[in-house]
Amino acid sequence: MERIIVSYEATLEKLGYEIEPADLDNGKFLQAVRAGDLIFTSGQISAWGGSEIKGKVGADVSVEEAYEAARYCALNNLRAIKALTGSLNQVHRIVKVLGMVNTAPGFDNTPAVINGCTDLLREAFGDAGQHSRSAVGMVVPFNWAVEIEMVVQVR
Amino acid sequence: MERIIVSYEATLEKLGYEIEPADLDNGKFLQAVRAGDLIFTSGQISAWGGSEIKGKVGADVSVEEAYEAARYCALNNLRAIKALTGSLNQVHRIVKVLGMVNTAPGFDNTPAVINGCTDLLREAFGDAGQHSRSAVGMVVPFNWAVEIEMVVQVR
Amino acid sequence: MERIIVSYEATLEKLGYEIEPADLDNGKFLQAVRAGDLIFTSGQISAWGGSEIKGKVGADVSVEEAYEAARYCALNNLRAIKALTGSLNQVHRIVKVLGMVNTAPGFDNTPAVINGCTDLLREAFGDAGQHSRSAVGMVVPFNWAVEIEMVVQVR
Repeated sequence: MERIIVSYEATLEKLGYEIEPADLDNGKFLQAVRAGDLIFTSGQISAWGGSEIKGKVGADVSVEEAYEAARYCALNNLRAIKALTGSLNQVHRIVKVLGMVNTAPGFDNTPAVINGCTDLLREAFGDAGQHSRSAVGMVVPFNWAVEIEMVVQVR
Repeated sequence: MERIIVSYEATLEKLGYEIEPADLDNGKFLQAVRAGDLIFTSGQISAWGGSEIKGKVGADVSVEEAYEAARYCALNNLRAIKALTGSLNQVHRIVKVLGMVNTAPGFDNTPAVINGCTDLLREAFGDAGQHSRSAVGMVVPFNWAVEIEMVVQVR
Repeated sequence: MERIIVSYEATLEKLGYEIEPADLDNGKFLQAVRAGDLIFTSGQISAWGGSEIKGKVGADVSVEEAYEAARYCALNNLRAIKALTGSLNQVHRIVKVLGMVNTAPGFDNTPAVINGCTDLLREAFGDAGQHSRSAVGMVVPFNWAVEIEMVVQVR
């Protein structure tokens, strides 16, 4: 019998992403909270590795840039999860994604934006990354292009 | 001792709705994911039986039309749930509804819209259909009039 | 060995708030539903003790007023939870807050608004009140300044 060891962290490294655990407490609220085997994350913003993606999507920010912004949000979600679990290998399943896009008037192709998050989760976690989701437009604080929160099941 | 058999599917048929299971995987994300005894659905749109309800509610779409649109969204949620459970009789409780209305500027009677979903759930599931909810306005993708996601407890 | 008895209700009274249980059923939907040890509340509005805070935040309503509005929403969430549990001392953990701010065009300091809710939860529940959250702008029904829903873990 062969036991297959999957390391999501190793996969993420191959994709070029090193996931450092977030500071869980920002002095006001927590980046993630666990209840039973579910983790509920705070809305994570579109900043990664010194790069910040801000602006109204469909006006200041293109769909391609916003897709990348959604990847940043996904990565920050992973940082928040790792802060609680110690390792992303504790992820059993990405359950639900709420993708919140900072839409310019008239822009409603929000799924194309949140696909950045969805694609990254599937690249990194395979079947365990397959999630349900909503991808909608609203006002995101401080003009971040995208904000994403998740529900994740852990071991 | 009498055992009362409730068939939500039979009730839905009496209401005129046949609920075929959704294709769970749209090639990108899943229409619903189960974690423990909870199902989290993806935001479901306002299309049913060949009819599509699109447009800004309060301008292009009347409250009455949007109420019907919310019923469509509810029905598509049931399709997503059935795809996971095999039968809607596995539903223990509709827990939570997030109703997202594609509002025109100045329109904020979003509860009257999401009542379409709420009423259908109570007609179909009785006490098990009584849920908590939020009904708010935002940008819904591709100009769908309404989008609704749910948390559902199953047996 | 000393057993420390924490009474969240007593703490809330010291803060000046008496939390009467909400009417759970408003005739249409429920203010909160329990599934396992999780409670999902309905979006609660910014009215408390005869005072109503309505209007677009950043135009009709100042950040300071909206901060107070978010406290009202938090208090109404506690009423909804108490209606299900009988006592707020049954709260194990405030898990997740979704803060929905009725934003005027151009206003995006939604975190400063939802801090009203966050601060109240931490004042009342201490460590058990530390939650994850998103704080975003959208259309809130009937022009309420703020609406907030929660996920709460109970004993």
